[in-house]
Amino acid sequence: MALGFVFFLSGDVAFAQQNKNKIDQNVQSLLSKMTLEEKVGQMAQVTLDVITKGKDRFSSYEPVVLDDKMMADVFGKYKVGSILNTANNRARTPQEWYGIISGIQKVGKGRLKIPVIYGVDAIHGVTYTAGATFFPQQIGQAATRNLELLKKGAQITAYETRASSIPWNFSPVLDLGPDPRFPRIWETYGEDPFLTAEIGKVVVKGYEGDDNNVSSPFHVASCLKHFLGYQVSVSGKDRTPVYLSEQALREYHLPAFKAAIDAGAHSIMINSGLINGVPVHADYSILTKLLRDELGFKGVVVTDWGDIENLYQRDRVAKDNKEAVMMAINAGIDMSMIAYKYEPFCDDLVALVKEGKVKMSRIDEAVSRILTLKYQLGLFDKPLTNYKDYPKFGSKEFEQAAYQTAAESITLLKNHNSVLPLSKGAKVLVTGPNANSMRTLNGGWSYSWQGEKVEDFAAKYNTILEAVQNKIGKMQVNFVPGVSYKMDGKYFEEYADRMEEALQAAKNADAVILCLGENTYTETPGNLSDLYLSELQTSYAQQLAQTGKPIILVLNEGRPRVISKFEPAMQGILMAYLPGNFGGDALADVIFGDVNPSGKLPFNYPKFPNSLANYYHKPSESRSVVEGVYNYDADYNPQWEFGFGLSYTTFAYSNLKLSSNSLSADDELSVSVEIKNAGNRTGKEAVELYVSDLYASITPDVKRLRAFEKIELKPGESRTLTFKLDKSAFAFVNRENQTVVEPGEFEVSIGGLKEKFNIK
Amino acid sequence: MALGFVFFLSGDVAFAQQNKNKIDQNVQSLLSKMTLEEKVGQMAQVTLDVITKGKDRFSSYEPVVLDDKMMADVFGKYKVGSILNTANNRARTPQEWYGIISGIQKVGKGRLKIPVIYGVDAIHGVTYTAGATFFPQQIGQAATRNLELLKKGAQITAYETRASSIPWNFSPVLDLGPDPRFPRIWETYGEDPFLTAEIGKVVVKGYEGDDNNVSSPFHVASCLKHFLGYQVSVSGKDRTPVYLSEQALREYHLPAFKAAIDAGAHSIMINSGLINGVPVHADYSILTKLLRDELGFKGVVVTDWGDIENLYQRDRVAKDNKEAVMMAINAGIDMSMIAYKYEPFCDDLVALVKEGKVKMSRIDEAVSRILTLKYQLGLFDKPLTNYKDYPKFGSKEFEQAAYQTAAESITLLKNHNSVLPLSKGAKVLVTGPNANSMRTLNGGWSYSWQGEKVEDFAAKYNTILEAVQNKIGKMQVNFVPGVSYKMDGKYFEEYADRMEEALQAAKNADAVILCLGENTYTETPGNLSDLYLSELQTSYAQQLAQTGKPIILVLNEGRPRVISKFEPAMQGILMAYLPGNFGGDALADVIFGDVNPSGKLPFNYPKFPNSLANYYHKPSESRSVVEGVYNYDADYNPQWEFGFGLSYTTFAYSNLKLSSNSLSADDELSVSVEIKNAGNRTGKEAVELYVSDLYASITPDVKRLRAFEKIELKPGESRTLTFKLDKSAFAFVNRENQTVVEPGEFEVSIGGLKEKFNIK
Repeated sequence: MALGFVFFLSGDVAFAQQNKNKIDQNVQSLLSKMTLEEKVGQMAQVTLDVITKGKDRFSSYEPVVLDDKMMADVFGKYKVGSILNTANNRARTPQEWYGIISGIQKVGKGRLKIPVIYGVDAIHGVTYTAGATFFPQQIGQAATRNLELLKKGAQITAYETRASSIPWNFSPVLDLGPDPRFPRIWETYGEDPFLTAEIGKVVVKGYEGDDNNVSSPFHVASCLKHFLGYQVSVSGKDRTPVYLSEQALREYHLPAFKAAIDAGAHSIMINSGLINGVPVHADYSILTKLLRDELGFKGVVVTDWGDIENLYQRDRVAKDNKEAVMMAINAGIDMSMIAYKYEPFCDDLVALVKEGKVKMSRIDEAVSRILTLKYQLGLFDKPLTNYKDYPKFGSKEFEQAAYQTAAESITLLKNHNSVLPLSKGAKVLVTGPNANSMRTLNGGWSYSWQGEKVEDFAAKYNTILEAVQNKIGKMQVNFVPGVSYKMDGKYFEEYADRMEEALQAAKNADAVILCLGENTYTETPGNLSDLYLSELQTSYAQQLAQTGKPIILVLNEGRPRVISKFEPAMQGILMAYLPGNFGGDALADVIFGDVNPSGKLPFNYPKFPNSLANYYHKPSESRSVVEGVYNYDADYNPQWEFGFGLSYTTFAYSNLKLSSNSLSADDELSVSVEIKNAGNRTGKEAVELYVSDLYASITPDVKRLRAFEKIELKPGESRTLTFKLDKSAFAFVNRENQTVVEPGEFEVSIGGLKEKFNIK
Repeated sequence: MALGFVFFLSGDVAFAQQNKNKIDQNVQSLLSKMTLEEKVGQMAQVTLDVITKGKDRFSSYEPVVLDDKMMADVFGKYKVGSILNTANNRARTPQEWYGIISGIQKVGKGRLKIPVIYGVDAIHGVTYTAGATFFPQQIGQAATRNLELLKKGAQITAYETRASSIPWNFSPVLDLGPDPRFPRIWETYGEDPFLTAEIGKVVVKGYEGDDNNVSSPFHVASCLKHFLGYQVSVSGKDRTPVYLSEQALREYHLPAFKAAIDAGAHSIMINSGLINGVPVHADYSILTKLLRDELGFKGVVVTDWGDIENLYQRDRVAKDNKEAVMMAINAGIDMSMIAYKYEPFCDDLVALVKEGKVKMSRIDEAVSRILTLKYQLGLFDKPLTNYKDYPKFGSKEFEQAAYQTAAESITLLKNHNSVLPLSKGAKVLVTGPNANSMRTLNGGWSYSWQGEKVEDFAAKYNTILEAVQNKIGKMQVNFVPGVSYKMDGKYFEEYADRMEEALQAAKNADAVILCLGENTYTETPGNLSDLYLSELQTSYAQQLAQTGKPIILVLNEGRPRVISKFEPAMQGILMAYLPGNFGGDALADVIFGDVNPSGKLPFNYPKFPNSLANYYHKPSESRSVVEGVYNYDADYNPQWEFGFGLSYTTFAYSNLKLSSNSLSADDELSVSVEIKNAGNRTGKEAVELYVSDLYASITPDVKRLRAFEKIELKPGESRTLTFKLDKSAFAFVNRENQTVVEPGEFEVSIGGLKEKFNIK
């Protein structure tokens, strides 16, 4: 029988199936030997500080040394099976990582020789590894619209994570990022479900390999996060309540996770917040019914930081820690990212099983998945990789890929009178709090959680100022900050820093490169109360504008802070997002014309703090335009829309053609369009195709992105692109939460051209 | 049998039952004689402009004259059964109303002598009747916390509506108003479900009478609106998408409607927006399953303005008007507030019945309810009331009630160094765009929809300036506007108006009474994009503060515009809301000490535009306070909280006592507290009792208002209040959408005192 079955499989698939069977056998065999305490230990994950020497379990002495006594308790007594994070919230060299993790693997494996699985947040490159290659943060990656580049970036990050002896990466973030207020929108691929799904798929393959063979020493297990509907809180603040219908959850938030699960992702992390009053970590309908029964996810489900405790201490759905553990495990959690206090989790879970409040079958299921992942990662054979085997770590080749991603992310939002590119002969003033900062180019999750330690590690890379100096010579570049961030303060603390001098210097320059934005943050410390760019920076920009000099505004920010009070006074505007260690070089290349910008906004850039709408809003949100009365203050009024981004050349769209104007839902629709570079520079263009369902049983969105492709054209060159649309491009989630295509009229639009078609 | 049944009823109930039976018989008899076209006509409502002479159906010539030709079409051909609104968007005298409506009743009754039912929005007094008594808008009414006053106000409005020959009032608004951005929050009773429900009940009784006998010539049929969940759109803008779980809908939005339906309200108007992608006007589950089957509502369901058309033209859930009509009627709409284009509605509905797409039983049900309401209102016997029978219309007695409501609504938010009350000997500068305006005191829905015609009708009442002049003598009062609204512009258009002169005048005054806020608006024209008070007013306040003179800021605004940029520079702050025609007098009395303020905020007043939370938020929204690190920019940070409001005297709370610290869910809990007037002025205090459920299966709100009572105390006087709480005070809506009480720990708090108790 088995032979007959293999007969129908291709060689690779057959091998994978055999391997799977072998792993299943190993796991079941191991499980049968484990005590309850050993099983519970596998479900526990603590942070590195806990097992290092230090004054308490919350911090470590430097240099970091493992603490035998704590390890005896964590691994010996409590049988903990997983460690995460760095120590002292600080990046480590690959050598240090090798030392730490080899020490852990020696002690951690215990009686049954089960290796410890080490996990880390390698968010845009390997966050906590000194010398690793740092890419733009996800939001900038999305702006490139270049899937090939993003896959390569994920491959490099996987390589460098393994070079750090770590096999498990808590990445990518597949949350939708539709709220510009949210302090983690820069960790997303932006507001569009389709774009997020398309990127999510290639990034999972980049991390795990095309065949998801994570036993490869160049691949890591990915961890999709944060399942599900995390970044749409009513308040816009981190980990505060979300209200969502199941329809909206499925229409907007599910597609990227579903696509990445189908792409083979090995683990998933849970939304730390509440949906409709219920913490997701306690929600059986999401963790089991949706994720397991419906999506068929087979991998490991891990909590976010401390989120079982949070059921009790923060969200008050449990009366004590024990009830919290019961709720979460019964809802479907496999592994608790406890962080610090492992004793109550382990003791309570053991007791719950003994009392019959958590079934042994639930424990066995969770532990089987964790052991399976350890087998899949090859940890039983080779519990850690060695940095010496990774010669390309931090190499020029990798740095070039990061540079290229940064260059393609930069989005030209305004170019009044073709002020850009600047002449290399120009004398410029470089100014603003983001002008000479590696910290702000990188953002949070860079060498430390909040990004405050970047300058300790990134001195060898170029700030915007340094890159401009390198480009046109120091003699032509003046630098006065004007405004600076308080480097040991909260992200929003800043002060006037030689502002008068800067205003004087502007008068003597041919042009001003004004670098504004935000200091670094993530999660709750990054919450905001006012989406306007700070008053001080706004006032500084206004004063600079009064000099009459052309101003090139460079926005280096994690979310689109409102600039409408001074935008009209800026001649050129470049959105840099958080472009990483090569963002300064990329910006200088764009500003002086060595790179033609090709980024496109991955979100709507708002014009006012209380007028936040996504490009795929409902018709009632932009109605007054239809009525012919434009009311700027009561309407759909983004500063710039999703997909917006200029070039130094011009692209002309023509000949939009459909293969049919009337089709059935199961037919494929071919849509072709001709794009011509009508300007005089080679340039790249992300061609985006939108579909509008004109009438539907759920009010349809005004339009939705359904296909895109980035191309390069020389001056005068034309190309015809053909997009194939299947029914997924016409479908939506109806009131019964089913994905359906309804007959009726539709419209396709590309680059301002539109054509209608009918589905029978 | 019938006799035996009556035996158990009291006389009044027996009479009501007999009357009901008689009406049922009349309705069935009439229905049996009606053609389909006649039935459909009863379900149609058009606006007055349609049947008046004018250049088209959208406007009228003045003076208003009924158009026989149009009436022949509307009543004769299309058998339309209801008219609403005024003509030319302008108030009319009672005499005019009598003329118009008597003309309509003559022509409108048709073959079967069915009277026309006339409906109007009498929102804070009879909006469209010249000379009517105007009260504070609902938001100010809620600030009084005085149910007796509000009931009296509703009685007066009912009287004056009938004095205008109109028997049906589209009021009260029972929408929750939790979003300070929404342009209609001032039409609500604020953010709290309990407060809204308590007021809703007494207002319905005020309109309809304690026995809901609306045939009385002093009562009107009320119309609850806008069913359900209208004012919580994601964008904060009118008629844009709402996302709500059924749990939240029931926990927050349903209680007030349920209470008012149980109080006997005769009609209800539907939410014009979308919930979870579905326009409520097309939602069978809300209009029929919830409203009819579950709540047992027997009255008339009317659409909001043009909302059947909107299913097609705006929300695109219908492919044409006919499908829109089918959806709405089948969902449960009884009457369409068509407004203008009655022909397609009537023709399409007739056709739909003939095609079997709308059942005749659905038509009969709707028409029966409408005819029942006409019988209940006594219209068959007396199709219109005569203003001559209403001698108290606009009387001093009524005006005094409106004044008293305004006086109790005014909320003292700040009184630095007891700057208030001002001495009557002081020389004051009265300034600001709201200082000399009857329009802004009244707000929208005042003599015209957007309030722009107030000055034509309200000259005899006192602006703030005039009231201050009357109070302390014109010689002591200087007036320079500083900032003025553009009276024919959008609500947010304003300009500097002799600002330099005003700043000079401030220097010569003992104190400045600075009247800021908003011009008038409602609905979509009132949408905003920035919750900060306008830049010009903010800057003006900042400049005035630099004079060093004490400033009394009077806020005259429909929603809490953010003032944190200059609040610290104000010595006294009075929130006036939209206090109506007697708001100026009431403010002068408060400012100079003849009235001791006693209003309490009916909402959280926000400090920042992107930090909007209600007082009853979830624990995760104010967590960093618990952790001991106060982070003003990333936290729960209202400028002032719901329930806040100072007095010129001081109230001391003590002796909070519970009848038991451990009870079962069915037990009643008595909570007593002693309040003492510890100051030296007589004052009123709204005593508010909150309950916190400390752990629950849905994350509990931090606290909820469960009882309140307003009392008056002389200096030194004490009083012990006892509140009886039943299980409704401990209950919440759980995940299964059931209202339940769960065992566990609770906390009751009054005036800063707290006690815990346990439910077994």
